[in-house]
Amino acid sequence: MAAEPKKIIIDTDPGIDDAMAIFLALRSPEVEVIGLTTIYGNVYTTLATRNALHLLEVAGRTDIPVAEGSHVTLTKGTKLRIADFVHGADGLGNQNFDPPKGKPLEQSAAAFLVEQAKLHPGKVTVVALGPLTNIALAIELDPEFCKNIGQIVLLGGAFSVNGNVNPAAEANIFGDPDAADIVFTCGADILAVGINVTHQVVLTDAERDKLIQSNGKFAQYLCKILEVYFSYHHEAYSMRGVYLHDPTALLAAVNPSLLTYTEGAVRVQTTGITRGLTLLYNKQKRFGEVTEWTDKPTVKVAVTVDAPAVVKLLMERLMES
Amino acid sequence: MAAEPKKIIIDTDPGIDDAMAIFLALRSPEVEVIGLTTIYGNVYTTLATRNALHLLEVAGRTDIPVAEGSHVTLTKGTKLRIADFVHGADGLGNQNFDPPKGKPLEQSAAAFLVEQAKLHPGKVTVVALGPLTNIALAIELDPEFCKNIGQIVLLGGAFSVNGNVNPAAEANIFGDPDAADIVFTCGADILAVGINVTHQVVLTDAERDKLIQSNGKFAQYLCKILEVYFSYHHEAYSMRGVYLHDPTALLAAVNPSLLTYTEGAVRVQTTGITRGLTLLYNKQKRFGEVTEWTDKPTVKVAVTVDAPAVVKLLMERLMES
Repeated sequence: MAAEPKKIIIDTDPGIDDAMAIFLALRSPEVEVIGLTTIYGNVYTTLATRNALHLLEVAGRTDIPVAEGSHVTLTKGTKLRIADFVHGADGLGNQNFDPPKGKPLEQSAAAFLVEQAKLHPGKVTVVALGPLTNIALAIELDPEFCKNIGQIVLLGGAFSVNGNVNPAAEANIFGDPDAADIVFTCGADILAVGINVTHQVVLTDAERDKLIQSNGKFAQYLCKILEVYFSYHHEAYSMRGVYLHDPTALLAAVNPSLLTYTEGAVRVQTTGITRGLTLLYNKQKRFGEVTEWTDKPTVKVAVTVDAPAVVKLLMERLMES
Repeated sequence: MAAEPKKIIIDTDPGIDDAMAIFLALRSPEVEVIGLTTIYGNVYTTLATRNALHLLEVAGRTDIPVAEGSHVTLTKGTKLRIADFVHGADGLGNQNFDPPKGKPLEQSAAAFLVEQAKLHPGKVTVVALGPLTNIALAIELDPEFCKNIGQIVLLGGAFSVNGNVNPAAEANIFGDPDAADIVFTCGADILAVGINVTHQVVLTDAERDKLIQSNGKFAQYLCKILEVYFSYHHEAYSMRGVYLHDPTALLAAVNPSLLTYTEGAVRVQTTGITRGLTLLYNKQKRFGEVTEWTDKPTVKVAVTVDAPAVVKLLMERLMES
């Protein structure tokens, strides 16, 4: 008898690579998507919700609920940094798709997360693809959330490498460092996939050509929106290809053995020039003094990835017609 | 005709591995030690001055002047962190040596650094083995100092690895992060050797036994003071050996080809939980926005070291009788 598919909620700010991750999830029999929650990041939250509904309509999966998330950071005062220069003004490659017919739930993202975790204790995985505000709000809303949630797989951080917002910080963590520090230290089962790993997973020009030639519905859709994302990567990194950030994190939830992990306490710097920096304590040294990492819960942090296997799985599933 | 030896000033907080580095410099024909300047770190500054004078007397080199450095951090208010638990209460392995006969110069360390750099423009190398307060004070004292100084080789930072004071910070940078940020961004020719490199250079128990068996004056002296340093490493790192931090930085000044380097802008976090963290921007990504690293001068940061060659050179020179 096949194992029951893993229930996942994707917290997302679509976003071109978010669209890839969502489609990938819908084509992965290992997981059952029980909801999308939305957040600012690649676009503002209102547009993230619109895009989430739109993508589910493209996929013919309007049975999946969408819960709208926070419009502001946890501390509320922070000016949002929106990556429209990466994903286009509409977040989906400047394609000006028609507005979706569907509506989000009345419930907030945080309330939906709390409810679903309580409904299926230990069984729900959150795949968090944007700033971690909704997850931190769920933790604030229900102290039991960290116990009830099965796992939080998050795309975030730049462990021992330069960030992508500035030399110190990766975009999702930079988006809400206070929320990220709460999530990393909450005690839940956490698996972080940072850009130190996702920068190893590249969809090349040649692979995009294969997508174009396939009859897959998702492949055809994605090829339309990918142009903007390729242009950005060429400009910022002088590369002919794009990083598969969100799909890699999604596949870490689908098949954790595609990556290897180290373990340790992670804290997030919330002030100063390295605001948004993620720092993992690897427990190699015993410090004489108490540090800000002492007694913090251990999380898993991805260190290597079988990049060819990730790209292969992504191509296969997105090219299915 | 042999090249003229490189004039060096060692800024030091002796310190067991400082003693090794000073003796090594005195046995290295490639360099001419034109002065020692003192700083807090392994001990308070007063004791650092006493130990510097003592070590020169042990070496029979009382011709070399000692200039006493700052007793406080650049911003003055910071409580000093003194590593007596690493080096012993006297900084030299709890041996209670007799007080030195010599006295330091009337001149401060910063004034001495400024004067010597002006006297031999482009010809003086500072080898900085402690917190960078004196160097920052020299920069404040004379805006021309960064142009006049030949090179600053500094032992400091934990580049892409955990620190040794806490998971974020290495001890010398943590000692005065404000000073360190000024030094890293001053525009001088800077070569930083961090613990990511010095943790690869270990003096083992077996090598200490060789030192004990040699007739070398310095080897004999060092074996007396090394016990405390070995005990600390065993306790903190579960290792039977000691890291050769200061000697490695000194040898980087003597023979830069023992290490390899990367280049980029380095900034130091001065607040929050990662205070003292050093962050190198490797210029791989072109950021759309201005960052705190934009337009900052490029420095060299050591990335690999020929550890066997460093240990061999150190052993040979310290075992000479």
